[in-house]
Amino acid sequence: MAKSWATSGLDLHLPLTGTRVRAAVEQALRDAVLSGRLAPGTPLPSSRSLAADLGIARNTVADAYGQLVAEGWLVARQGSGTHVADRVTPAPAPKPGSTVEPRPTYDLRPGQPDASSFPRTSWLTATRSALATAPHHALEYSDPRGLPELRQALTAYLARARGVRTTPERLLVCSGTTQALSLLATVLTGRIAVEAHGLAHHWQIFAARGSRTEPLPLDTDGAAVELLAESTASGVLLTPAHQFPTGVPLAPARRATVVDWARARRRWVIEDDYDGEFRYDRQPVGAVQGLDPDVVLYCGTASKSLAPGVRLGWMTLPPRLVEPLVEAKRLADHQTSSLDQLALAQLLVSGAFDRHVRRMRQHYRRRRDALVAALRSTAPTVQVEGISAGQQVLVRLPGDATEARATEEQLMAAARARGLAVAGLTSYTHPDATQAGPALVVGYARPTDRVFHAAARELCRLLG
Amino acid sequence: MAKSWATSGLDLHLPLTGTRVRAAVEQALRDAVLSGRLAPGTPLPSSRSLAADLGIARNTVADAYGQLVAEGWLVARQGSGTHVADRVTPAPAPKPGSTVEPRPTYDLRPGQPDASSFPRTSWLTATRSALATAPHHALEYSDPRGLPELRQALTAYLARARGVRTTPERLLVCSGTTQALSLLATVLTGRIAVEAHGLAHHWQIFAARGSRTEPLPLDTDGAAVELLAESTASGVLLTPAHQFPTGVPLAPARRATVVDWARARRRWVIEDDYDGEFRYDRQPVGAVQGLDPDVVLYCGTASKSLAPGVRLGWMTLPPRLVEPLVEAKRLADHQTSSLDQLALAQLLVSGAFDRHVRRMRQHYRRRRDALVAALRSTAPTVQVEGISAGQQVLVRLPGDATEARATEEQLMAAARARGLAVAGLTSYTHPDATQAGPALVVGYARPTDRVFHAAARELCRLLG
Repeated sequence: MAKSWATSGLDLHLPLTGTRVRAAVEQALRDAVLSGRLAPGTPLPSSRSLAADLGIARNTVADAYGQLVAEGWLVARQGSGTHVADRVTPAPAPKPGSTVEPRPTYDLRPGQPDASSFPRTSWLTATRSALATAPHHALEYSDPRGLPELRQALTAYLARARGVRTTPERLLVCSGTTQALSLLATVLTGRIAVEAHGLAHHWQIFAARGSRTEPLPLDTDGAAVELLAESTASGVLLTPAHQFPTGVPLAPARRATVVDWARARRRWVIEDDYDGEFRYDRQPVGAVQGLDPDVVLYCGTASKSLAPGVRLGWMTLPPRLVEPLVEAKRLADHQTSSLDQLALAQLLVSGAFDRHVRRMRQHYRRRRDALVAALRSTAPTVQVEGISAGQQVLVRLPGDATEARATEEQLMAAARARGLAVAGLTSYTHPDATQAGPALVVGYARPTDRVFHAAARELCRLLG
Repeated sequence: MAKSWATSGLDLHLPLTGTRVRAAVEQALRDAVLSGRLAPGTPLPSSRSLAADLGIARNTVADAYGQLVAEGWLVARQGSGTHVADRVTPAPAPKPGSTVEPRPTYDLRPGQPDASSFPRTSWLTATRSALATAPHHALEYSDPRGLPELRQALTAYLARARGVRTTPERLLVCSGTTQALSLLATVLTGRIAVEAHGLAHHWQIFAARGSRTEPLPLDTDGAAVELLAESTASGVLLTPAHQFPTGVPLAPARRATVVDWARARRRWVIEDDYDGEFRYDRQPVGAVQGLDPDVVLYCGTASKSLAPGVRLGWMTLPPRLVEPLVEAKRLADHQTSSLDQLALAQLLVSGAFDRHVRRMRQHYRRRRDALVAALRSTAPTVQVEGISAGQQVLVRLPGDATEARATEEQLMAAARARGLAVAGLTSYTHPDATQAGPALVVGYARPTDRVFHAAARELCRLLG
C-alpha cells in the first residue's frame, strides 16, 4: 500500500506498508525528515486532513504526531500546528572505513598465537558445562576481582605451573595484560622503568595516565635492574622469563636485585609473564613473584595460550594494592565477562587447559626447531637469539647500529614483495633507548600449519 | 618415599614423592624455604653430600640447585657454596575475605534483572553456531571497536528498536555502560552535568579522572537541562527514556533544548539508555541520539536485557570522538571478548534476542502490575512513581525532606528484619543535590518468580 498527501503545499509520497498503520506512518515521517523531503520547519498537515488523505483514522495520525513530538522529530506549537523540528540532522554518511591492510600471505609477525589452534570444541564443552551448573548469581554483578570459581582454579594453576604464590583473595581477573597495566597505571604514577625493547602500547598505557617510562638497557643477563638504584621510578615493568622481544631471561642475580630494590624502597615490580607456558629446552624458570608476593605483581594472560580474542588475564595483588586496584577495576568495567570466566574455570578444572598447553608446546617447539635449523643452514650471516621459549625469535642482521632502521625497512619492503610480513626490532625499541644493531622479530606461532613451512622458506630465501 | 638429611647442622625431613626425582627435590626445597624450615642465609649441603644422603645421583641435586638459583630461591656464592636466599618471604596468609553480606530472602533492590531468566539455552546455541562458523582471525586481536559481525547486527537492531542512527564504523562495543563512561571520562574533562538522582558509581568514574559532576534538578519533565545554558559543563549525562531511578521521561521540549545546547556550544550529550527495551504502556520513545548523532553519544547495554555478567555494552561515536575513543579503548583493554561478541551477534541475527526481550517485557510488566496494584490497595499513604517502564519503581514515603535519610534508614532496618532488601533514594542522590522527600527505590526484576510474590507481600506489609 502506498499513499500520498498533497496538503500545505507538500506533495509527499508516503509509503504505508505492514499492518501496524500507526507505526508505518511514524516511520514514513521519520524517513521523510531524514531524507530531507520534509525540511526543518516545514508545517505538517493537520491530523484530520492527513488522515482523510490516507484513508485512516484521525486518532492514528494524531498518535503518530504525538509520538514524533515526544521523540523530538516534530514540534507542536500552540496555535500554529505541528512542524518538522529544526534540529534533526541528516543521517551520518557511512565512513569510507578505516583502511584495513590486506592480510599478508606469510605472516611471521610476533605477538599472536596460531588462532586456528584455538580449542573450539573444548571451549564449547566448557561453556555447556558452565551454563548447566553455574548458580544464577554468577550472572549478576559480582566481585570486581572475578568469580570465585575462576580465582580458585587460577590460584592452583599458577602455583603449579609458574611457582606463583597467591590466594583467590589476592587475584584479580581482568581483560588481558593490557587491562592489567591500565589498572596499574591508575595506581603507579610518576616514572616507570621499562625494558629498552618491548611493546609500544605498554608504554602508551602509562603515558596516557601522565607517567613517563624510562628504558633500562638490556644485555645478555636481561634488563640492567641494578641501575634502578639511581632511579626515582615508582615501579619497573619486566618480562623476566623470556624478554619480549629479545628472548633473554633475567639472570638469577638480577631477579634478586630487583626484588631487593622494590622491598627496600617500597617500589613495585610488574612481572609480565606473557608466554610463561612455553619453555622448550629446560624446565621453566618460576615466576619472580614467588620470591616476594608483597612487592611483585604477576600478570598472566590467556592471549598466548588460548587466543587474544578471549581477553582473559590475571594479576596478583600485593596486600597494599588490593583495595586501589579492585576500585580501579570496578570503575573501569566492574568485572570481566562472567561467561568467559566460567568457561576458563571449567577448562582449568577439567584438565583441558593443561592438555591444550602441552599440545601447543610441542607444536610450537617443532616450529621453532624447523625455523632455527632452516635459518642456520641457509642464512649464516644472521644470528638467531631468544629461541629457548615463547613464540618468536630475534634475528640479528649484519649492519651498522646507526642504520638499524633503514636496514630493517629495506628488508621488510623486500619481504612484503614476497608476501611475507615480519617486524623490525626498531618498532619495539623505546624512543629513549638505543638499539645495538638491525634485527627482525620473527613470530612463528601465527600462521596455520599449512602456511608456516612455506613462510619459513620465504624468510630463509630473503635472509640467505 | 621420604628421606632426610642431616648435614650442616640441619635435620631436615625431605619427602620425595612421585617419579620425577629432580622436580620432587626442587619442590621439597621450595616448601622448606617457604615454611621457614630453611631460614634465609642457611647454607645448603654440597650437592655431593645431599645426593649421598638421599641415595640419588649427584647431577640430579646439582640440577635442582641450579634451577632454584635461577629462580632466586637459592644463591650460589663463589667459594662458599649454596645458601638460602635472603629475600624469600613467607607465603601470604589467606585474607579473612571481604565480608560478604548474606543474601536477603527477598531482594527488591534495583539495578539487576532476573538472572534466573538468562537464556542459557539460546546463549549456548549461539556460542555453538559462532564457534562453528567464525573465521580464525575473529579470535585474534581485532578492531578495538569490536567485531564487524556484531557492529553490523547492533546497527540494525538499534535503528529498529531505538531509533538510533549510526553505522558500524561509528559504533564501539564495550564492557557495559561502566566502561563506556570510563572511556568517555578520558575524553570529556572539566565539569560534567548529571541528573540529581542517579548511580553513584557513574559520578565516581568521572571523579576518578579529575572531573567534577554537577547535578541538574529533576522535576516532572525530567532533568532541568535549560540550566545548562549557565553551565560550563563539557557534557551532560542523562537517562532520557526512563530517568534512573525516579522513572520520569525527559519531556520533548527538553530533548530539543539539550540537543540545541550541545550543538550550539559544541558540548556532548551522553544518553544512558540503560533499560530502553522495557516500555509497558505505550510505544517506546525513540533515543534522543536520533535527533543529532553528531552531538549525542548513545550508550546501551545487555545488562538489563540479558544479564550484567555478560558485560556487553555499546556506544555510538560522533565523528569528532571516533579517534580518541577508539584509542582509549585500545589502551584500556584492546577490545571486548570476541567470544561474547560473536554469541551476541548470533542472538541478534537469529532473532533469539528479540524473542527473549519480548518475553521478558511481558514478564516484568506482569510483575509491575502486581506490585503497583498491591501497593495501591494496601499502602495508600505512599505514592508509586516511574511505573511506565524499566525494572524499578519509586515509592515516595510520607515524611519531611530534612529527615529523608533517617526515615529511609528506619524503614530499611525494619525491612531487613523481615528478610527484605530495598534501597533508599538517598543512596542515589548526588552529594550536591537536595532530595524532595524520603523514598524507596524498589526493583521488581531481581527475584526469581518463586520469590517475587512473597517479596511484594512483605513490602506491602512493611508500608501498609
